[in-house]
Amino acid sequence: MAKRIFGVDLGGTTVKLGLFDEQGELLDKWEIPTRKEDSGSHILPDIADSVKAKMEEAGIEKNDVVGVGIGVPGPVDGKGVIHKAANLGWGVFSIREELAVLLGGIPVEAGNDANVAALGEMWKGGGRGCENMVAVTLGTGVGGGIIVDGKVLSGSNGAGGEIGHIHIVDEEEDACGCGNHGCLEQYASATGVTRLARKRLEKDDKASSLRDGELSAKDVWDAVKAGDELAVEVAEQFGDYLGKGLAAVAAVANPERFVIGGGVSKAGDILFKYIVEPYKKYVFHGSRDAEFVLATLGNDAGIYGAARLVLG
Amino acid sequence: MAKRIFGVDLGGTTVKLGLFDEQGELLDKWEIPTRKEDSGSHILPDIADSVKAKMEEAGIEKNDVVGVGIGVPGPVDGKGVIHKAANLGWGVFSIREELAVLLGGIPVEAGNDANVAALGEMWKGGGRGCENMVAVTLGTGVGGGIIVDGKVLSGSNGAGGEIGHIHIVDEEEDACGCGNHGCLEQYASATGVTRLARKRLEKDDKASSLRDGELSAKDVWDAVKAGDELAVEVAEQFGDYLGKGLAAVAAVANPERFVIGGGVSKAGDILFKYIVEPYKKYVFHGSRDAEFVLATLGNDAGIYGAARLVLG
Repeated sequence: MAKRIFGVDLGGTTVKLGLFDEQGELLDKWEIPTRKEDSGSHILPDIADSVKAKMEEAGIEKNDVVGVGIGVPGPVDGKGVIHKAANLGWGVFSIREELAVLLGGIPVEAGNDANVAALGEMWKGGGRGCENMVAVTLGTGVGGGIIVDGKVLSGSNGAGGEIGHIHIVDEEEDACGCGNHGCLEQYASATGVTRLARKRLEKDDKASSLRDGELSAKDVWDAVKAGDELAVEVAEQFGDYLGKGLAAVAAVANPERFVIGGGVSKAGDILFKYIVEPYKKYVFHGSRDAEFVLATLGNDAGIYGAARLVLG
Repeated sequence: MAKRIFGVDLGGTTVKLGLFDEQGELLDKWEIPTRKEDSGSHILPDIADSVKAKMEEAGIEKNDVVGVGIGVPGPVDGKGVIHKAANLGWGVFSIREELAVLLGGIPVEAGNDANVAALGEMWKGGGRGCENMVAVTLGTGVGGGIIVDGKVLSGSNGAGGEIGHIHIVDEEEDACGCGNHGCLEQYASATGVTRLARKRLEKDDKASSLRDGELSAKDVWDAVKAGDELAVEVAEQFGDYLGKGLAAVAAVANPERFVIGGGVSKAGDILFKYIVEPYKKYVFHGSRDAEFVLATLGNDAGIYGAARLVLG
């Protein structure tokens, strides 16, 4: 029978699972809840049970499974060891080994979820054909996944690609979630964009559609598209900070392409109008021609990337 | 006979060559001039002749040579292709293939000189035992070599690790050699340190031993060691900028260790007094415990790293 791969994307409330063939075609996908009680001790057994149930349902023999890949919300080193995931109640242990035992010896690979999603975008999404790329997730925070020569850069303890915490603004008085002040995430995440907008609104009385009602990142980008001058100022500030941050990333990793995803990226191509010019201004000339594209896999990037992990 | 490796460090005026055993012991080293005339067309043939002469002299058979590694002053991609080295008169071609032909089929590996020196420090110098490290060269400019999982990060077109061109200061009016404004190199290189000192001296009339005579980076650090208050201010500014830049590097690459080399590093451990505290302030917590050490191989880092390239 043809070979199969399972890709698992472990989130704080839901585990997404995907069944793939070796060419990366998604044959089936489903979800199970993430049971965080008892220090997260049910999570891996639940995943193993779900994989085994699917194998039985689809008539897949153990020998036909190339492996199971999993992305988890926490730092995972190159050997598949998680270094604490507080939101799951997990300490330090080898996901690779524990899950493999639960699966009766099927090979397992594990990685950080943002890094794994980057791998998914490289394999089947906006980064297709790129061996050196950076996936940037502009969501609640700013996440990054650095792909070097086709492999995820995990770093010495799994904190590679934490590009949301590059220091950008010296004068920042508010603290980032990480405890530092002036991190990229404070300006380029969804909450960062609304924060920039709120600060701009407070600065003076300039007219803006953003003065009415709630204020979300989507509101800001909708106003930009409608030509709202104040919103455009916010977009320029956002773009200057993000362009500066990505230029620093490029000075280190020299990617061929940036793949932009996450909630803020739903604004679409208009983002690039504000990011690319500052990027080119701040970046070293050797990286000036990097491409900027939108991510294409959405919430499935994680299961694609997890499956890709297995292929090494 | 025991296996041998040649490591070649190609510089603008001199080619350094080293003969190593497979364990990385340096058995012999020598130099030849770099003949740049005729668009640098003599350089690789000269190197091949020198290697072959040494093989004959030392009685080394072709089959006993594992390979020849070479570091060159320009961007080299992961396939051993140089993407222009203006100072050598070189365009785009495969160093790996051309030198291998000149050597009668002995395998060749090539890399950028800063990256290769980093590999040398990882193998036998300050980064020994580290699979994830960053070598920082504080010389005429600021160079970087990023090692990820034991391999050099070259990037998509050989511009990986160009950490001297991370944007640090928004208000900078002077241009960096690269054409941008506010690059790390403008503050943390040898010329950067003297520039910071000169600007500080011009600011007011504060007494300082630096007001007398010539002003070199060494003079500044000597004055710091002697307790000169103005020099200490300069060192603090240098450390703040460099700490901030290396924190950005860590947000991307999450190294276990920074290995600091180059002319400025001759100041010694006192550097760390000024770099580490700002680094810890700006860096993401996952990289806060990175170690800082001095490079130990000096001018031999290039030949060690070139030899290490051959081992993959």
